[in-house]
Order: sequence, then C-alpha cells, then structure tokens
Amino acid sequence: MLHNRTIRLASRPVGMVKPENFSAANEAVPEPGDGQFRVKVECVSLDPAMRGWIAEGKSYVQPVGVGEVMRSYSAGYVDVSNHPNYQPGDAVTGMFGVQQYAISDGSNGVVKVDAKQAPLARWIGGLGMPGTTAYFGLLDIGQPKEGETVLVSAASGAVGSIVGQIAKIKKCRTVGIAGGAEKCRYVVEELGFDACVDYKAGNLYQDLKQACPNGIDVYYENVGGEIFDIALSQMNLFGRIPVCGMISNYNATEVPPGPKNIRSILVNRLTVRGLIVFDFIKRYPEAAEALGRWHAEGRLKMNEDVRETGIDSFPEVLNLLYTGGNLGKLILNVQDQS
Amino acid sequence: MLHNRTIRLASRPVGMVKPENFSAANEAVPEPGDGQFRVKVECVSLDPAMRGWIAEGKSYVQPVGVGEVMRSYSAGYVDVSNHPNYQPGDAVTGMFGVQQYAISDGSNGVVKVDAKQAPLARWIGGLGMPGTTAYFGLLDIGQPKEGETVLVSAASGAVGSIVGQIAKIKKCRTVGIAGGAEKCRYVVEELGFDACVDYKAGNLYQDLKQACPNGIDVYYENVGGEIFDIALSQMNLFGRIPVCGMISNYNATEVPPGPKNIRSILVNRLTVRGLIVFDFIKRYPEAAEALGRWHAEGRLKMNEDVRETGIDSFPEVLNLLYTGGNLGKLILNVQDQS
Repeated sequence: MLHNRTIRLASRPVGMVKPENFSAANEAVPEPGDGQFRVKVECVSLDPAMRGWIAEGKSYVQPVGVGEVMRSYSAGYVDVSNHPNYQPGDAVTGMFGVQQYAISDGSNGVVKVDAKQAPLARWIGGLGMPGTTAYFGLLDIGQPKEGETVLVSAASGAVGSIVGQIAKIKKCRTVGIAGGAEKCRYVVEELGFDACVDYKAGNLYQDLKQACPNGIDVYYENVGGEIFDIALSQMNLFGRIPVCGMISNYNATEVPPGPKNIRSILVNRLTVRGLIVFDFIKRYPEAAEALGRWHAEGRLKMNEDVRETGIDSFPEVLNLLYTGGNLGKLILNVQDQS
Repeated sequence: MLHNRTIRLASRPVGMVKPENFSAANEAVPEPGDGQFRVKVECVSLDPAMRGWIAEGKSYVQPVGVGEVMRSYSAGYVDVSNHPNYQPGDAVTGMFGVQQYAISDGSNGVVKVDAKQAPLARWIGGLGMPGTTAYFGLLDIGQPKEGETVLVSAASGAVGSIVGQIAKIKKCRTVGIAGGAEKCRYVVEELGFDACVDYKAGNLYQDLKQACPNGIDVYYENVGGEIFDIALSQMNLFGRIPVCGMISNYNATEVPPGPKNIRSILVNRLTVRGLIVFDFIKRYPEAAEALGRWHAEGRLKMNEDVRETGIDSFPEVLNLLYTGGNLGKLILNVQDQS
C-alpha cells in the first residue's frame, strides 16, 4: 500500500545534528484539493542553511517548528493535479519538504523544469538555487572585472563551484579553497579554476599568498571563521566580499571568535555585503537564462553527489555538508529503495 | 629672530604615543621658490588617523618617515608668495604639517577658505575634511531614509557630530554613542540627537536596545571593538554600516578580538563598507556646498576644542583623542604663545 514517508523535526539540535533530532514515519499519502496538485518527490537538496532553519535563533527565515516536516528544496513529478497549469508528469522544483509526497498550489517559488535538458537533481543544484545564488552574489555584489583575482571558499560545493566557473567566464584569475587534495584536484582539473588551496594542509596564509600573488579583489565567502579572517588580510584596495554563507559557524555551540583582521574593511575600503538568493527573486529569469545558456554551451560543469541511502538517512547525509564529506551538490534520493 | 618650530617623528610608538616619539626644534624659516608660496600655520587638526600615519604597517597612506615633519591637516595664512593664484593674507587649508611655516605649490588639496564666513579652525573641522567625511559616509554609503534609525559612535567627535546632524536633517531617528554623561548631554542638548548612550556606563547592549527600539538601519562606525560588535547584533535587515574609523584599535599592541556577531552581515544582509574621504575627492565641491549651506542656515552646529598649550604639546594633545579627553573637533594652535 502507498504511504508518504516523512522526516519531521523531533527536537532542536545542539551542535551537530543527531539522528534523534528527526523522526521518520509512514503517513497517509495526501490528496490535493481544488487548485492544488500533488508532487511525487524524487530528490531533496541538502543545504548548509538547513542548520539555521532548525535552530532556535533568528536566521533568514522562520525556523521549522518541532513536529513539522523538515523544510527542503526538492524536485519531483506532478502525479495528481486539480490545478489548470500543472499536469501529471510535469517536472517541478519547490520547497516540498523531506517527504515522498507533497501538496502544492504552485505558489512559493514552484518552478516547472525540463527534465530532458538536464537531470532532475541538477535543477535543484547548479541550475537551481545554488547556481542562482552564485550568479547574483558574484556578479551583483562581487562585480568582478577582467584580470582581477576572485577567491572562492567551499570551492567544490554547490555554490562555490558555479561561482568559480562564472569568474572564469568573466576572465578573472580564479582561486578556490577546499578541504583535501582530492577536492582541490577536482576544482582545478574538472572545474577549470586557476588554482585551489587546501585549507586542511595547515598553511593557509602562505598558500593563499602564493595562489593570489596580486592580492584578492573579490572573496566569495561561504565559510566564515579563520578562512574569512585570512582572506580579509589579503584583500586589495576597494575589494568586494559577497557573504553567502558562514558554514563553519552553523554548528557552533558557542559564538566563535570574530575576524581579527576586521580593520582591513577600513584600510582597504572593502565592501562586505550579505545576500540570500530570495533577495533577487524578481531577477531569477535573468539568472536562469544565463546559467542555462552557459550550461548548454558546456561552459558550466555541474556535479551532483546523489545519495541513494534512503529518506531515513537524512540526518547523516545532512552532516556530510559540515564535515566536508560531499563532492558536488549534495542530494538525497527520497524514493523507496527497491 | 624668526624661526620655524617643527615637530618631527623621532621614533615609532608602541601602544599609546609618548612624548619621546617626537622631537621639537627651532629651524630656519623656509623661503618659497618659483611657483611656491609660504604659509604661516595657525592651527593643526588632531586626527585619529594620525596614529596610523606613524605606524609601521599598511594604512591608508604612506607612513611618515622617522625624522620627517609630522604630517597634519592645517590652516593658516599665506605670508610670502611667488605663485600667481595665492596672495599674502589668503587663508588656506592643506597638509602643511606640524610646524609654524610651510612651503606649498598649491597642489595636494590646498584649499582657499573664507575666514570671515567661519573661523579658521572650523575650516579644518566641520567645514573641512571631518565634515566631508561625515557627508559622504552617511549619505553615499549609509543612504539613510526618512524615519530610519541612524546610530553614530564617537558622536561628540569631529565626524560623528556632523553625521548625526545630517541624519536629523534627513529626518532620521538619530542616536549617538559617547563616553560619559557630559558628552551625552552635549550630543542631545546641543547637537540635537534624539538620544545618546554612554558606553562607559557599562550597560551598552541594553541601553542601545532602549535607545533604538526599532533596531538600527544605519550604523556609522568610528570606533571598532566591542561597540561595533554590539551594534552588529542590533542591525535591521538590509542595514548599512559605513566604516570610517576603528579608533579603539589604533593603539593596540596586539590585534584585538574580532566582532563575534559577524554573522549578522549574512543573516541581515548588511552592507559594510570602508571609506576615507580622499576616495570622494572629485565630489568635494558637492559636500562643500551642502555643508556650507546647512551651516549658514544654522542647521549644523560645530564646536572646536582649540588647545592653546603650544606646538610642543602636540604628543599630549594627540593622546586626548584616544582617551576621549576632547569635546568637539580637537585642534592645536601652533603659533608661539606670548
């Protein structure tokens, strides 16, 4: 018999997420009402921001309530519809949550996508919100100019990998930061960055100096902590720092130390600006057009790390983001494993 | 017999400036060459940035060399001229240094001013670089909108006092931070801020919450350190932080701790941007026009704290900036005391 396997928030985590912070259950498959349709969810995006969604404090958005289905950006196919614009078989992305069936009325950013043009997982990766975040953060806030040096942390990640490739399209010297030799190799050889520094090698300041001999004009910030601090110390005059994430802080149980090199903002007249992709919602079509075109031209490589360990493994898979255990956009297949 | 009393940098200070970091001497009065003129300097501006000018490390500008006349922004009268555009008796401001006579060719930002319209000291204060810094930092970077809350640190200082008064002209709720009850009284009663919080009272977080019940939209940053950190924690969504100074760091012998609330930049999508006034040099006339007009209309109060303790007291007077010992724009009369 059909069921809807769901992952609900059971309690708020302290530090890293633990399996007992979530509960899995088989629930009845929901039926769409008038003007609604049902989505059979295939895959769920694992995003660093999720840690903020389940924390008590103020973050970008309302926290997920204890007992609620875990929020997620997901992709699937319409399977029943009472909505004139959605037909069974339509591929869609949206905030469908960590569950196998979701009901929607098409609002709240549901997007129809073309599953022939790219696999479903890519539409919640490089062609979806992560790519859109990369696009606006780099181009609007970073404003890279030809010949400048663009540094990207979490360079092998969903956002960072696209940031660096767009920076190359804009003819910048493009340097990544990633954890471990394998990720660094991937960033340079597969994604085409000019260089990539391994922050786990223990010599970040000097290694960055060497990789950025002309200093840093744009630092695309995904991680916070010590990496942010060292990048601050090597910024050029009038440099720009789009702040897209500070993943190193998300699981901290105490507020971590702040950046000691904060005075660089003054001395170098930096612009440091935070963003989340929803701030640019009116301009999504512009990003979709550019990302789609570059992707079709083969200029944007995208790599999804799709886990097939089943919906119940959601907490463990989520933690891979914070331990650096994924390579490429981390996605969980939530369909029943057969 | 005429002499030129000079203050030269004798050694680079560690921590607070000490008298022995400077040496005073009577030198020959210099003679202007072709295309040059001589300025009899009356008063010298004491600026927080001076601490950076005499430090070893990278700051906005080249450091002052050991043995060189201390750099300063000064005002005086032309007394001998071989330059067609400058006549004896012309009042001028410029980077004339801490000395009684200076030679200039009129380049490097020398400005003729009207000593009948305002006292000479004011032309290196609210109508000079501090006022210009306030103008561009608040209006260009801060972009205050009617009804928003603008917070200003070092609110009784040369820059902060003008920032707050411009914020009032722009119809913002304007809150200052200053050290001690007397300065706070001055900021509210004399300068017309809506409120002023005494950071020395030991309850800054709560006092700020109370003074800014709707949060902070613009924080004009002059001081750095803990005040910056607390302001970060109370910023509103899409807030702006012009970073004009971080005076609390300037005399530190070790790099002080960074702001723990740095994640506010991301969560609230803040824009944090450093500035120095020279970045806006092409638009100085715009600021001069606006400041002059508001001043003439009585909407900008300016207060100079002119010290008459003689040129040799320069090191002690400079330290008043870092201990909060001045009220209003700190200026030293460098003429011989009679």
